[in-house]
Amino acid sequence: MTYCVGLCLEQGLVMLGDTRTNAGVDNISTFSKLQRVEVPGERVIGLATAGNLAITQAVWGHLQEGVFLDGQRLRLPDVLNMFQAARLVGAAVRAVFAADGPTLSAQGIGFDCSLLVGGQIGEEPPRLFLIYAAGNFIEATADTPFLQIGEHKYGKPILDRVLTYDTPIADGVKLALVSMDSTLRSNLTVGLPIDLLEVKRDELRVHQWRRMGEDDPYFAAVRQGWSEALRHAYMVMPAPDWA
Amino acid sequence: MTYCVGLCLEQGLVMLGDTRTNAGVDNISTFSKLQRVEVPGERVIGLATAGNLAITQAVWGHLQEGVFLDGQRLRLPDVLNMFQAARLVGAAVRAVFAADGPTLSAQGIGFDCSLLVGGQIGEEPPRLFLIYAAGNFIEATADTPFLQIGEHKYGKPILDRVLTYDTPIADGVKLALVSMDSTLRSNLTVGLPIDLLEVKRDELRVHQWRRMGEDDPYFAAVRQGWSEALRHAYMVMPAPDWA
Repeated sequence: MTYCVGLCLEQGLVMLGDTRTNAGVDNISTFSKLQRVEVPGERVIGLATAGNLAITQAVWGHLQEGVFLDGQRLRLPDVLNMFQAARLVGAAVRAVFAADGPTLSAQGIGFDCSLLVGGQIGEEPPRLFLIYAAGNFIEATADTPFLQIGEHKYGKPILDRVLTYDTPIADGVKLALVSMDSTLRSNLTVGLPIDLLEVKRDELRVHQWRRMGEDDPYFAAVRQGWSEALRHAYMVMPAPDWA
Repeated sequence: MTYCVGLCLEQGLVMLGDTRTNAGVDNISTFSKLQRVEVPGERVIGLATAGNLAITQAVWGHLQEGVFLDGQRLRLPDVLNMFQAARLVGAAVRAVFAADGPTLSAQGIGFDCSLLVGGQIGEEPPRLFLIYAAGNFIEATADTPFLQIGEHKYGKPILDRVLTYDTPIADGVKLALVSMDSTLRSNLTVGLPIDLLEVKRDELRVHQWRRMGEDDPYFAAVRQGWSEALRHAYMVMPAPDWA
């Protein structure tokens, strides 16, 4: 399994993905699920993937080769805006489905794949999309400023409670890391290291690209600080009033 | 869906269940999923259920009628110990499977049911079991002092991080409520009110049996206190060191 989360905030984008893949619990590997495309001063795009690794790697491969959209062969550095980026990724998913879907289906294997595409191109504000296995997609809005793919349930409560569109991006990074840590602790199929992409609004470049493992001092501080804060929080809450 | 959680701690048992059932999101009802059997001074047993409501109500119905185990017709007030209680519940599940399984299967409906059985009988310590749809079961231990059924993922991280066998039972109640609240907020198929059973070791009676809705002052305090504590916790955590 996988856990990836994207935040689309007033100040910019945060995308975070783990790196564990598994074909059964006895066959675990490390693959990055977060890719980036950067043309400094013009565009920065992040792509996070979840699902069958052969499918998601094929999608990324097609995107690097170029995918037909509206009669043109395009790559992510070519698209005019983020809506077109999302359509291009959807087209890549459909190209893989056209090529591999029938055989997967004949062998009883589902076409399991979902992606987050976030970024900023030119003067458009940063945008974030979730692309489904059918190649269609939804977009994050100020009402729902985060999207998740993969093993999303463990890390959802903290985002549901705290994150809003106007959360400062530094706090968004913290919350994404807490959401990831909650997932890492509760589900073995999500594993370290994790990859982080931070994009600040109107910088039009990668603000931070960072791989974080056990030894990353900031992630370690978040993990420990959060555990201590939770322990403290439940201790200071009032005891049941019937006790 | 449903969320029920049971804690088996040094000081006793906590069992908590929501009351929402749904047949599609447009057909929502309220049914208690937590039952209790009490013979003061002798035994106290709680039963929490998740899955297909027709199946879980049939299991409870069979238990009230009496179920054959080792050639005897027994009910929960008759069993000699909690292991026998778990076996009896398993036998009730199998009786329902024998009666309804073939038709459900013919109609393409899975036999979806899981239960928590916790309690104390006589001089035995409190024990907690999770009974599967096959009627077999596992038991909570000091290493893993909580068991969950239903929509378990949202509420697992807080328990994974904080709960241990020697957590005081009043703190166990708080943590179970926080775990439930996380689930309620993130998943519409889990809903208020919630039912709580608290059993203190060696009291051999119900210590607390409480239904809590929106207006329950303690649950409201937990919900609000926890949200504020989380918000405070992430604000005081250090900002990313590259910021």
